Amino acid sequence: MAQTQLTVTLLAAKRNLGLSFADLGEMLGVDEVWVASLIYGQATASEQEAKALLEALGLDKNDNSIEMSCELMAFPVKGGLDPVIPTDPLLYRFYEIMQVYGMPLKDVIQEKFGDGIMSAIDFSLTVNRLEDSNGDRVVVTMNGKFLPYRKW
Amino acid sequence: MAQTQLTVTLLAAKRNLGLSFADLGEMLGVDEVWVASLIYGQATASEQEAKALLEALGLDKNDNSIEMSCELMAFPVKGGLDPVIPTDPLLYRFYEIMQVYGMPLKDVIQEKFGDGIMSAIDFSLTVNRLEDSNGDRVVVTMNGKFLPYRKW
Amino acid sequence: MAQTQLTVTLLAAKRNLGLSFADLGEMLGVDEVWVASLIYGQATASEQEAKALLEALGLDKNDNSIEMSCELMAFPVKGGLDPVIPTDPLLYRFYEIMQVYGMPLKDVIQEKFGDGIMSAIDFSLTVNRLEDSNGDRVVVTMNGKFLPYRKW
Amino acid sequence: MAQTQLTVTLLAAKRNLGLSFADLGEMLGVDEVWVASLIYGQATASEQEAKALLEALGLDKNDNSIEMSCELMAFPVKGGLDPVIPTDPLLYRFYEIMQVYGMPLKDVIQEKFGDGIMSAIDFSLTVNRLEDSNGDRVVVTMNGKFLPYRKW
Amino acid sequence: MAQTQLTVTLLAAKRNLGLSFADLGEMLGVDEVWVASLIYGQATASEQEAKALLEALGLDKNDNSIEMSCELMAFPVKGGLDPVIPTDPLLYRFYEIMQVYGMPLKDVIQEKFGDGIMSAIDFSLTVNRLEDSNGDRVVVTMNGKFLPYRKW
Amino acid sequence: MAQTQLTVTLLAAKRNLGLSFADLGEMLGVDEVWVASLIYGQATASEQEAKALLEALGLDKNDNSIEMSCELMAFPVKGGLDPVIPTDPLLYRFYEIMQVYGMPLKDVIQEKFGDGIMSAIDFSLTVNRLEDSNGDRVVVTMNGKFLPYRKW
Amino acid sequence: MAQTQLTVTLLAAKRNLGLSFADLGEMLGVDEVWVASLIYGQATASEQEAKALLEALGLDKNDNSIEMSCELMAFPVKGGLDPVIPTDPLLYRFYEIMQVYGMPLKDVIQEKFGDGIMSAIDFSLTVNRLEDSNGDRVVVTMNGKFLPYRKW
Amino acid sequence: MAQTQLTVTLLAAKRNLGLSFADLGEMLGVDEVWVASLIYGQATASEQEAKALLEALGLDKNDNSIEMSCELMAFPVKGGLDPVIPTDPLLYRFYEIMQVYGMPLKDVIQEKFGDGIMSAIDFSLTVNRLEDSNGDRVVVTMNGKFLPYRKW
Amino acid sequence: MAQTQLTVTLLAAKRNLGLSFADLGEMLGVDEVWVASLIYGQATASEQEAKALLEALGLDKNDNSIEMSCELMAFPVKGGLDPVIPTDPLLYRFYEIMQVYGMPLKDVIQEKFGDGIMSAIDFSLTVNRLEDSNGDRVVVTMNGKFLPYRKW
Amino acid sequence: MAQTQLTVTLLAAKRNLGLSFADLGEMLGVDEVWVASLIYGQATASEQEAKALLEALGLDKNDNSIEMSCELMAFPVKGGLDPVIPTDPLLYRFYEIMQVYGMPLKDVIQEKFGDGIMSAIDFSLTVNRLEDSNGDRVVVTMNGKFLPYRKW
Repeated sequence: MAQTQLTVTLLAAKRNLGLSFADLGEMLGVDEVWVASLIYGQATASEQEAKALLEALGLDKNDNSIEMSCELMAFPVKGGLDPVIPTDPLLYRFYEIMQVYGMPLKDVIQEKFGDGIMSAIDFSLTVNRLEDSNGDRVVVTMNGKFLPYRKW
Repeated sequence: MAQTQLTVTLLAAKRNLGLSFADLGEMLGVDEVWVASLIYGQATASEQEAKALLEALGLDKNDNSIEMSCELMAFPVKGGLDPVIPTDPLLYRFYEIMQVYGMPLKDVIQEKFGDGIMSAIDFSLTVNRLEDSNGDRVVVTMNGKFLPYRKW
Repeated sequence: MAQTQLTVTLLAAKRNLGLSFADLGEMLGVDEVWVASLIYGQATASEQEAKALLEALGLDKNDNSIEMSCELMAFPVKGGLDPVIPTDPLLYRFYEIMQVYGMPLKDVIQEKFGDGIMSAIDFSLTVNRLEDSNGDRVVVTMNGKFLPYRKW
Repeated sequence: MAQTQLTVTLLAAKRNLGLSFADLGEMLGVDEVWVASLIYGQATASEQEAKALLEALGLDKNDNSIEMSCELMAFPVKGGLDPVIPTDPLLYRFYEIMQVYGMPLKDVIQEKFGDGIMSAIDFSLTVNRLEDSNGDRVVVTMNGKFLPYRKW
Repeated sequence: MAQTQLTVTLLAAKRNLGLSFADLGEMLGVDEVWVASLIYGQATASEQEAKALLEALGLDKNDNSIEMSCELMAFPVKGGLDPVIPTDPLLYRFYEIMQVYGMPLKDVIQEKFGDGIMSAIDFSLTVNRLEDSNGDRVVVTMNGKFLPYRKW
Repeated sequence: MAQTQLTVTLLAAKRNLGLSFADLGEMLGVDEVWVASLIYGQATASEQEAKALLEALGLDKNDNSIEMSCELMAFPVKGGLDPVIPTDPLLYRFYEIMQVYGMPLKDVIQEKFGDGIMSAIDFSLTVNRLEDSNGDRVVVTMNGKFLPYRKW
Repeated sequence: MAQTQLTVTLLAAKRNLGLSFADLGEMLGVDEVWVASLIYGQATASEQEAKALLEALGLDKNDNSIEMSCELMAFPVKGGLDPVIPTDPLLYRFYEIMQVYGMPLKDVIQEKFGDGIMSAIDFSLTVNRLEDSNGDRVVVTMNGKFLPYRKW
Repeated sequence: MAQTQLTVTLLAAKRNLGLSFADLGEMLGVDEVWVASLIYGQATASEQEAKALLEALGLDKNDNSIEMSCELMAFPVKGGLDPVIPTDPLLYRFYEIMQVYGMPLKDVIQEKFGDGIMSAIDFSLTVNRLEDSNGDRVVVTMNGKFLPYRKW
Repeated sequence: MAQTQLTVTLLAAKRNLGLSFADLGEMLGVDEVWVASLIYGQATASEQEAKALLEALGLDKNDNSIEMSCELMAFPVKGGLDPVIPTDPLLYRFYEIMQVYGMPLKDVIQEKFGDGIMSAIDFSLTVNRLEDSNGDRVVVTMNGKFLPYRKW
Repeated sequence: MAQTQLTVTLLAAKRNLGLSFADLGEMLGVDEVWVASLIYGQATASEQEAKALLEALGLDKNDNSIEMSCELMAFPVKGGLDPVIPTDPLLYRFYEIMQVYGMPLKDVIQEKFGDGIMSAIDFSLTVNRLEDSNGDRVVVTMNGKFLPYRKW
């Protein structure tokens, strides 16, 4: 996922201001993962969200703030990890989880819900830190609407 | 993931007895996803777990119950979805989630924890049904130990 | 998409009885494409649909009619064309259409609807023959619910 | 599909003028999807269509309007989505539809028409919005001449 | 392209009778390449062609001559060379020709005909031997209808 | 096949002068397809051919005409379509022809000539337009020396 | 390269008789590499060579000696290493040699011969053992006719 | 194998001076193929070889002759043909040779030497022209130390 | 790496006798990893090693002990993990190590040794368990002869 | 693994100062392989390590030393060898080792430790030179914590 110029600019501003994604999420009233996905060009901002983000990052007075705003409000071509199966170890683990637990996950979901899928569109994703004396734990929660197959 | 003969046998027995993965999980004292991963040849049973599973499925008196028990207790070659990026829509959505939200997820995890990964080994995965008047929701929770990179 | 034994059996019975997919669709009260997708192991029948299909094909008295019925009612692993991009010319044309018209299609849909997708789950697909003096035309209609991206 | 400089210029002019593809289609007397495919470098304009498009976008007085006109009238190398199977969710759904419904679609078309294909050249593609109280629906209609295999 | 049982049977009968593809083509009133494509499961016979082929090969009295006839008259899933780019040197050369001369060929065709393609459906392919004192030459002639892109 | 700067320059000069490949072929005394392959960097010119081509295109007085001449006379790295199996519909059809008719073609050639191949080096390729009341036809003729396998 | 039944049979007979490829080559009057390529289904025997090979291996009295003879005389589909770039270390080294020395080899050959290739058809390949006090050496000699590109 | 700036510079100087690889090899006291592999960034020069090469090419007085010398003496990342299986016909033939003669070659080498490989490191590669009245022949000789597998 | 029948037989005998690879290694006087590689068909036994292994596993009196012995002494086609980059988590980690530490490893080795490689043929691989109060550690030691590039 | 500008700068400074990775490792109090992985953008420095590295390389007074320091302390996207299976012979050997010894390694590790993996995160990698009269040897030691699979 080659970073666009906009992503580079936004991440640099965030670093210079010492803001976390959680800080930005709070300022915009959205989750930290969603604001990160907006910065990475994977989501579409409303006009108000684009304005809020640029203000939060001190970029609203920039010469090209209008272009930046437009780009944040556009409908991005999503995805594009390169290579398709990433070699970064953190990212790869999620692919490995599907290799190992994919079929069990499918069977359990469909046993509970019937023939259909978990939506990746009507969907949210959050990350929490769970303290644990044996080493803290990452808790990733995916929450998607169940979509049953339509018959016709 | 071509099913081994053992997986086919176990799934058929489960279907004939009308047992759910949740039922089997309760009988073995484990989560439904884990017991499904055992049936799919992705996990290793203790001797007691192998015995309990075969009993639960009425297969403990079979001629080849010892071989089945051995296979459940072996260390499987894991993974093996074919094709590597699955075409089944339920499975594919989890790949799509990584394409779209992978980089944001990486950044948020590492901002919270530092350089390292969520373990896929010291890890659990659960599925819940969340009732919702706009359509019930699938909630998938991944819980893995954070492993910081060692320096040397 | 290697045909399962069930698909082979159903298609042979259909051929022997001289029934079209349209005939079968009418008997089950569903569209001809959906009944074809059921026969190809890509959809899940209700108990009544499974019964009706086996009766229509004269297979309801077979020794293994119960197993066939079970398989029709199971939740299939979908997809699996081999190779992933098919070499059959009729199938390939639909891939070519996406190569050529994919980005225009994306832009027009999102201009009309906003950031989101056409569902392939809450979805139907029909085929019509349009008579034309210069050669009859195939009309394929895809009808899927628009799913807007959720923010969180 | 890396956008050429021309595509970038045309899309920017369209955005600045607040024109939709439907507006442009009306001005040129063509469908909105076709004009989008022209802008994306996937179709060939007549001299008159090239002129009309540049005028509609206020680019006909530009220094390089002749070069732009030439490029619109050239015979493009078509296709080129990267990766070949796109990761953008809207685009991917059309690939998934072929994975799931491809073989049924093939059989129904050939049962209706005989051995041959739906042309992707003598072809049109339109998008409509169908209002629906459960959520509006995207209707994509593909209309291609049936081409029977020639024997020799 | 794994050979089906039918292809194996037909080729064995042809070899045992010492018939060439040219002989069979003459018996059926078709070109030798087309009859070879029928034997390889890449074309669809009329009832009369199926009968003529089985007679020519002395298979019309076989127990399963009806099944063979049905299979010859079905609409095959075409293609399927494995690997997709063949390693057989004779076959590979045609891929190499496209690598080297593909773009020149495209430009010359479109300069002569406009934006469109040579049909591979309304198409014939013949092979001739050209005697030459420096070594005889293979002459492969492809003849396909030009299909101009439709605008809409 | 990314175009080199030389290819871009030559094609632009050709377009500006309104010359066809046939015109250039006539000026150089070679076939139009061969001259196109030279322009696309897939063939090697003699000194005289390089000179004639640059003159024909009005480029022989350019500052870098010597470099251009050298590049036309070099031994190019050939091939390089990207992706290897092209998505452009005109080019793809030739791949499809090999998928469908490859094995029949192989068998007919070897039945006529024995074990060996059609050379793609001692080879020529021509394009003709065949008028036809049902739509003109593209005739592509490949003519390559038969090379029998050597035994040793 | 999955071994055919014939290859398995021939190699087993060779092993049982304690014959080397060099022995077989001498008996047939051909090189050891060529006879190995015949046994591996990569070359075509004359009737006399097929007979000599079966006799040498004591298989000429077998029930299916005629079928074996036919198969040795057929025109095989050549190639088919799986995976295409082999993982066997001996085989891989030849791929590595091309990765490292391919471009230098191309330039040196074309500097000596002009634009063209070394034929892999009018070609022979031999293996010799060169004694060396620092460890004996494998000498592989490839000898192919130079084929200059034809212009037309 | 994208050429580095150094390779481009060295090849241009060689062409301008009208030197062959054989000339350069003689000047450095090495084989022409090895000097070509050095120029292509696939081998490491000693300080003396780097100096000799730059002198031979008239580049030893250049401003950046020290950087060029350093780069020639560095340990290159080797390989990198793109695509991995090259489409250039001269290069491809060597891949084809391995597809067709790879298994026979493996068997003959191991029959002569035992379990092990021909080294591609303790290795040399030479090209000779063999005059032949039927057309001169390219003779490529590979000479590598046999490395037996170690047991432990 | 599909297991051959021989591998399946040897592993079953080992399991039934309750022998570890370390036990077998001790009986044959070789390392446990090497004996495992022999059982997996990746190494060649001497006659004495083959005999010792079959005796150790109680298989030396079997009907097909001679065939098993022959197969153990043959020169295997090595490699063949499927898919090439394995999805099994234990195996994948070694690929990940090369993705992350490959270039640093290359540079450190070549800084210490010069241009060349670590042999994978004159090579040994051992596994040790290192007790550690924070969790025992796996220590994998690779020991290969340094092979310097030959110049010629 | 395309080198970032920072990697290029650091490697150039190291070369100009004539420092080895071992020198740098000693200066920072870390292993030479780890400091190389930091320079290649595969590890994260503490503030103190970043400062020490820039000082050691004489880059701490540079204009952009703060940016360099920030980049060294960031959480890199790891991996990214291109192609995924490298063609460089030194790197490839480690892939070959896994092809040949992967399954034996897996079995020996799991026999010693149970179902789990060697961590590639809580992990170190060292390189030693072992003098040997038959040629010095490269000894690569991998040391990773064993992680047992969690059940839940």
